[in-house]
Amino acid sequence: MKKIRDRVAALQKLLAARHIQAYVVPSSDPHQSEYVADAWKRREYISGFTGSAGLFACTQNEAGLWTDGRYWVQGEAELKDTGIQLFKQGDAGVPDWKEWMLRSLKAGDRVGFHPHLFSLDQHQAMEASLKAGGIELLACEPDLVDEVWAADRPAIPRAPLREHRMEHAGESFGQKWVRLKSVLRERKAQALVISALDELAWFLNLRGADVGYNPVFYGFALVEEKRVSVFVDGPKVSESLRQSFGKDVSFLPYEALASSLSNLSKDLPVWLDPATSSYAVAKVLRDAAIPILRDVSPLPAWKAKKNAAELAGMRAAHVRDGVALLRFWRWFEAEAPKGELDEIKVADVLEQFRAKEQHFRGPSFASIAGFAGHGALPHYRSTAESNVKLKAPGIFLLDSGGQYDDGTTDITRTFALGQPTAKQKEVYTRVLKGHLLLARSEFPQGTNGYQLDVLARQPLWQFGLDYGHGTGHGVGAALCVHEGPFSVSLRKNMIALEEGHILSNEPACYFVGEFGVRIENLITVVKKTKTAFGEFLGFEDLTVFPYDRRLIELSYLSDEERKQVDRYHTKVVAALSPFLNAEEQAFLHEWCAPL
Amino acid sequence: MKKIRDRVAALQKLLAARHIQAYVVPSSDPHQSEYVADAWKRREYISGFTGSAGLFACTQNEAGLWTDGRYWVQGEAELKDTGIQLFKQGDAGVPDWKEWMLRSLKAGDRVGFHPHLFSLDQHQAMEASLKAGGIELLACEPDLVDEVWAADRPAIPRAPLREHRMEHAGESFGQKWVRLKSVLRERKAQALVISALDELAWFLNLRGADVGYNPVFYGFALVEEKRVSVFVDGPKVSESLRQSFGKDVSFLPYEALASSLSNLSKDLPVWLDPATSSYAVAKVLRDAAIPILRDVSPLPAWKAKKNAAELAGMRAAHVRDGVALLRFWRWFEAEAPKGELDEIKVADVLEQFRAKEQHFRGPSFASIAGFAGHGALPHYRSTAESNVKLKAPGIFLLDSGGQYDDGTTDITRTFALGQPTAKQKEVYTRVLKGHLLLARSEFPQGTNGYQLDVLARQPLWQFGLDYGHGTGHGVGAALCVHEGPFSVSLRKNMIALEEGHILSNEPACYFVGEFGVRIENLITVVKKTKTAFGEFLGFEDLTVFPYDRRLIELSYLSDEERKQVDRYHTKVVAALSPFLNAEEQAFLHEWCAPL
Repeated sequence: MKKIRDRVAALQKLLAARHIQAYVVPSSDPHQSEYVADAWKRREYISGFTGSAGLFACTQNEAGLWTDGRYWVQGEAELKDTGIQLFKQGDAGVPDWKEWMLRSLKAGDRVGFHPHLFSLDQHQAMEASLKAGGIELLACEPDLVDEVWAADRPAIPRAPLREHRMEHAGESFGQKWVRLKSVLRERKAQALVISALDELAWFLNLRGADVGYNPVFYGFALVEEKRVSVFVDGPKVSESLRQSFGKDVSFLPYEALASSLSNLSKDLPVWLDPATSSYAVAKVLRDAAIPILRDVSPLPAWKAKKNAAELAGMRAAHVRDGVALLRFWRWFEAEAPKGELDEIKVADVLEQFRAKEQHFRGPSFASIAGFAGHGALPHYRSTAESNVKLKAPGIFLLDSGGQYDDGTTDITRTFALGQPTAKQKEVYTRVLKGHLLLARSEFPQGTNGYQLDVLARQPLWQFGLDYGHGTGHGVGAALCVHEGPFSVSLRKNMIALEEGHILSNEPACYFVGEFGVRIENLITVVKKTKTAFGEFLGFEDLTVFPYDRRLIELSYLSDEERKQVDRYHTKVVAALSPFLNAEEQAFLHEWCAPL
Repeated sequence: MKKIRDRVAALQKLLAARHIQAYVVPSSDPHQSEYVADAWKRREYISGFTGSAGLFACTQNEAGLWTDGRYWVQGEAELKDTGIQLFKQGDAGVPDWKEWMLRSLKAGDRVGFHPHLFSLDQHQAMEASLKAGGIELLACEPDLVDEVWAADRPAIPRAPLREHRMEHAGESFGQKWVRLKSVLRERKAQALVISALDELAWFLNLRGADVGYNPVFYGFALVEEKRVSVFVDGPKVSESLRQSFGKDVSFLPYEALASSLSNLSKDLPVWLDPATSSYAVAKVLRDAAIPILRDVSPLPAWKAKKNAAELAGMRAAHVRDGVALLRFWRWFEAEAPKGELDEIKVADVLEQFRAKEQHFRGPSFASIAGFAGHGALPHYRSTAESNVKLKAPGIFLLDSGGQYDDGTTDITRTFALGQPTAKQKEVYTRVLKGHLLLARSEFPQGTNGYQLDVLARQPLWQFGLDYGHGTGHGVGAALCVHEGPFSVSLRKNMIALEEGHILSNEPACYFVGEFGVRIENLITVVKKTKTAFGEFLGFEDLTVFPYDRRLIELSYLSDEERKQVDRYHTKVVAALSPFLNAEEQAFLHEWCAPL
């Protein structure tokens, strides 16, 4: 990998010339996004490593890349012969990049970083670690990688924006601004900076196409009592869109945020959310002697609590998604026995079926289509090299989703090809039991996902089984397929579930080299009952698509569970039938007959 | 209540004379005990309020008492005409005592407190609140209440100590000291101060009788590398006991702790656990310029993890306790239909049955014997005024336990008198389902009680039911019936359950004015399986006593649950039968027949 060696050498030469002893390149963009546009893929450019999570760091003569368990195999392959050492994050005895630097550097040395790519929280943690070793942090702007990358670096995307219409948004930008103004007054802040792209899209009721899978656009907003300044590059915003916001909203260039910030009053603080605001934004304020209110923004919690229009849109999108999946499944059941399908082909065909549905914009993430042993890799992505044919017998895990104008979907089904083994049926049924227990659970207001997570795992734990990821993540309404601020997981997230939250319910079980099972529906939190003992919440399924009954071992299901599956299948039939022709309806009925 | 008025007036006069604007009197003793000896019942003396939890505070012309929901009714009755205002802690809009003081006092005012009665953590919280209002804290020694109490104050108890024999302790004092020395070296501390009475009793393998229900004794220990100083009043320790500890252990008067502390080296810190060490102890060290290591002591975690001998003792004690309860139950079933039993009588007879068992020392807490509506008060204690006759039909909640030389028991059973109603059977069965689900649950190492709590509640939540207390508390081995550091509860206790932990499993449901159901067994954490997915733990019941089958609505139990009850009853028969005569065995068999 001479290309990569040359790039790292060029960066190290720059370091030497500028008397900087080390440099760190994270995966992020200036908005702390999970998915970033090509313009920000500096870490990928400098290291050649294409995984979604990873951090590159180098001194003047050594270089390393840190990534988690999902990407160790890929990291080893991609870093081969680059001279970059792979550090398996989370493996016993492996230093994190700060520990590695502390070992290589000496007091007084300087570590360069790009100030836009580290949140305030991340910067604080980095500073605390490195300062303990007497090492200084040096904000480098422009980024040193950009000096190497130079002419080839892709431009920041400028896809045009579109309105997210009121019928889907349910609350106008003006109403959201009124809510935010009241909190600004309460907190005695003159303004809030919105850095996270999904918060920006939600707040403005705008959608974009700057980033794969997520209908967001690059920009910031500075929200004050009397005006809102939106920093997006000019060509993105049509004149009519601009005018629809009225005179109190100005659209300024992406790069103009800094100068707008430094012109603010010094009398009242500017509110920054330390999880999403970059160190660079805080630095502009500090340099201008403007006080900072450093606290969680109210937007993630508001965005998470879906209103009636958003819920209606999500339901409608899930019906269309179910119809597309059902047509796909009919095709799949006809084709699979021929033994000629492969993982990539199946994912492509599924996308074509979705694309026929109204309001479809694209997939909500890269489909995970894993046959046999590939199904045991929770984040598997089939490539030209890994792609395999689907040959019965075997089981096939398919995790996919769509972006629609009115909603976002995310569903996993595990399908049987040929006769499943007793072990496969047992594992599938135990996963299903956890999925059903969480789905039917009721709980008092104030209960959080850390408490409920055990319900999805208990039927597995009982037999020494488990899965190494969360049970549920928040999902945006026609927005990102992963959002916060709550989760259902072994991670200590103590944010209570509230009516209107939308999340995934996806217990799983993976047997390395053999097969994987995951069953995922999106569910929404609804009110259940109010008694002398409190107000109780529960869940309602949004996803409408049958489970593969060939994988259910009936003797492991209780009567209650069997009835729950039957009820769910009845609901699926009712939801999808109106949109299906007679043959499709017959196919659906067969899969949804009582167990 | 002239007596109380006079006492408060005398205290207020003292405050005026000493230029102290307010005074605070908590319920605690210098060891942060849950149960305190009469000598420390200053709050009860000054206010007349006899509840176990409460805090008295007064300014020079006002006085208040703060207590939680368990004691509001009792507080209202006992404070009547005393001039002391009742503050219902936890009720909406009720200020806590610090807020109340901040409203009454002005900057520069002084609040007096007894420095032995506040832990370091409590002192820190109190200081943070009051300092915000410019109010100073003034340590008062002797306690101002004692100046009013004067001659009548009961002496600090001096019951003689006894050895907790190796066959029950399983680890000698010497072995425990070796473990502690190694941690002291690791933490570079010269000594640890043991303040909590159960930690002291556990560490020294000694038991006492200074406090009701708990086999502990008043004292402190100062544990160093080369010697251990035990501060207990002389007459408590026999010469032979003293000599059994060898020359490196000295027994000094209770009051000598301060002088021993101030003579320590100034070079290395002394370790204080801020949850149990008093402000007074820390102050002695600070005044002597001795550094403090402020951190959780390792003792509570060591004490919680029972060794083989402790587990064997707990099992043996539970068998004897089960035999006593069974004989009691036979008597109860014969007598109850006559309609002449009352709550106090029943609790007394139960204690007599326990007292016939070997190694019995006394009850482990005041029995809760609540018929009908009284069963709905989780902490009910029958008094001459509240006592009622047990008249069928109705249900009867009985929560009791014993202290034995080899173990501590705590069991709740709810019994039917006459024909239970459908509602009573439904509620009992739903409580039982939660109790059974927690008992049979398995979980990976690292799981904590906050995560598992939902298992006991879920079968109730599902029907809008709940209970307002924890599901499980730790239990000492021949020690206090409540101990830490873990719990199974809605409180965010994140301490993982470990093999050898002993805890209660006591879900419940209360219908105010009607009846209460609680079902409690003690359980111990055991290893279950080790798989590719981790090491799994589970529970084993220690309590061996039947559930009242008359209250079980079979149609609400799954096959799995029915089998679980049958298995448990088979175990009860096997455990108790060897100690029962033929008639008693026949009685037991009847209650333990398959459901």
